[in-house]
Amino acid sequence: MAEPYGATVTLDRAKLVASAAVGEAQRRGWRMAVAVVDTGGQLVYFEKMDDTQLGSVTVCQDKARSAAHFKRPTRSFQEMVKAGGEGLRVFRIAGAVPIAGGLPLIVDGRIVGAVGVSGGTSDEDEQCAQAAVRALQ
Amino acid sequence: MAEPYGATVTLDRAKLVASAAVGEAQRRGWRMAVAVVDTGGQLVYFEKMDDTQLGSVTVCQDKARSAAHFKRPTRSFQEMVKAGGEGLRVFRIAGAVPIAGGLPLIVDGRIVGAVGVSGGTSDEDEQCAQAAVRALQ
Amino acid sequence: MAEPYGATVTLDRAKLVASAAVGEAQRRGWRMAVAVVDTGGQLVYFEKMDDTQLGSVTVCQDKARSAAHFKRPTRSFQEMVKAGGEGLRVFRIAGAVPIAGGLPLIVDGRIVGAVGVSGGTSDEDEQCAQAAVRALQ
Amino acid sequence: MAEPYGATVTLDRAKLVASAAVGEAQRRGWRMAVAVVDTGGQLVYFEKMDDTQLGSVTVCQDKARSAAHFKRPTRSFQEMVKAGGEGLRVFRIAGAVPIAGGLPLIVDGRIVGAVGVSGGTSDEDEQCAQAAVRALQ
Repeated sequence: MAEPYGATVTLDRAKLVASAAVGEAQRRGWRMAVAVVDTGGQLVYFEKMDDTQLGSVTVCQDKARSAAHFKRPTRSFQEMVKAGGEGLRVFRIAGAVPIAGGLPLIVDGRIVGAVGVSGGTSDEDEQCAQAAVRALQ
Repeated sequence: MAEPYGATVTLDRAKLVASAAVGEAQRRGWRMAVAVVDTGGQLVYFEKMDDTQLGSVTVCQDKARSAAHFKRPTRSFQEMVKAGGEGLRVFRIAGAVPIAGGLPLIVDGRIVGAVGVSGGTSDEDEQCAQAAVRALQ
Repeated sequence: MAEPYGATVTLDRAKLVASAAVGEAQRRGWRMAVAVVDTGGQLVYFEKMDDTQLGSVTVCQDKARSAAHFKRPTRSFQEMVKAGGEGLRVFRIAGAVPIAGGLPLIVDGRIVGAVGVSGGTSDEDEQCAQAAVRALQ
Repeated sequence: MAEPYGATVTLDRAKLVASAAVGEAQRRGWRMAVAVVDTGGQLVYFEKMDDTQLGSVTVCQDKARSAAHFKRPTRSFQEMVKAGGEGLRVFRIAGAVPIAGGLPLIVDGRIVGAVGVSGGTSDEDEQCAQAAVRALQ
C-alpha cells in the first residue's frame, strides 16, 4: 500500500531535489526540464536546462503531478500501456501520465510531493528523477 | 435493454449508497473516493476517505457520470478496450470511461443516478461500488 | 497577513463543517450545495440538498477552491468587482471567484481547507458558509 | 516602440532574476511565487516561497507570459481596465493579463523573456518584478 501524504515539500528541499536531477543530466550530457510539485500536484519549483526541447516544459509537470496524484511512479502507467489489452484504459484515467520519469518524493515514510523530468528518452528521464529522489535520503 | 430513467436519487439515498461503499472499503483496509451523481451525471454527494490518492477525486466522478450517461457499468467499456480492435473506439466516445468502478443506481426498475468509486485497483473499486448498489435493494 | 497553510482538513471535520452549513440552510428554508476542499483546493466532501439549482454544483466548488487558493473569503473578490475600475481585473485572475460564499477553514491558526456554498443569494450562501466556519471553533 | 525580441533568457540569468525578486519579497516579509519565461512565454524557471497562496502558482506564470507575448508590463493592461469604456476590451484580448506584476526582461536593448510575480497586492508583486528586472542591468 502506498505511503500516506505528509506535509508538502519545502522550497529548499525542492531545490535540492531538482539540483540532483540536473546534476545527473549534466554528467550524462542530457538536456532536461525538471518540475517539483507538492502533494496536491501544484508547482513548487521548476527549471529547464538551456536548449531543452520545449515540449518538456509541460510534460515534466504532467509527470510530477501524476506521480503525486496517484502515489506511484509514472512508469507503472507506462507498463499498463505496454501490456496492452485492458491496460490501455490508462489513457482515460484523468491525470494518469503513462511515461516514465515521474516519481513520488518520500520523507520519513510520507509522500511530500513528486518530481517529474522530461527531455530525453523516458528511461533517461527516470534516471534523473531517481537521482532526485535519492537526494532526499 | 437498459432501465428507463426515473426520478433522481435523493440526498438521503445518496448518503446511504456512499456509506455502503465506504464501509466495504473500511472492511478491506482500502482508501477510496466515492461520488454519487444524478441521472444527468451531476454530483449529488461525494466523500473522500482520508489519505486517498488525490487523482481519485476526479476519477470517481468521471466513472459515476459515465455510468449515468450510458446506463451501464463502466466495466462494459473496459471490456471493449480489453477486446481491442474496434473496441478501442471507446476512446472517442465522449464521456465513456473504460475503468471498472462506476455503476448505475436502480430503484424500482428505474435508473435514479450512478455511483463511482476510485482509490484501488479497478476490481477493488467496483467491489465497493457493488456494495453501494446493494444498499438500495 | 493570511494564516499559513496547515495539514489538510480530515473527512470527519469536513462532514461537521458541511453539516453546519446545511443546518443553517434548513433553518432558513434554503436549498444549497456545499463543498469542502483541502488546502490545494481538491474536493474532500460535497453534498447537495434535494432540488438545489444544478448550477450550484460547480459554483460551490469554485468558491471553495478560490478561498483555499487565495487564503481569503471570496467576498473580497466580489468587493473588487463592486468597486469597479481596476478592481475589474479580478475577472482575469485565474481561479479568483468574485462571489461571496467561499471561506477558508482555519484550525489552530492554520488554513486547513475551505468551504464553498451556493444555492441562494451570495449573502445567503455566505451566511451558510459562516455557520460552517463556526463549527470548527 | 517596443524592443525587438532577442535570444531567449538563459537558465543562469533566469535564476539571477528570480533570486532578486525573491530577495525583495524576503526583505518586505512577503510570500511570492516567481516565474521566468522565454520570449515565447514558455517557462524557464519557477520558484514558490513556502506558504505562498497557491493561486499564485498559475497567476505569476500568466503574468510573465502576458508580458512576453505583448512586449509590455502587465500594468499597461491593468490601466486599460482602470480607464473603463473601450479599455475593457482587454478582457477579450487572448493572453492579456490586466494585473500588475509581469515585466519584460531586456538585455542589450532586446526582450529576452519576462518575469511574473504573484502573492501580494499587484503593487507589491510589481515591486518584486522590478527588482528582478534591475538584476539584469
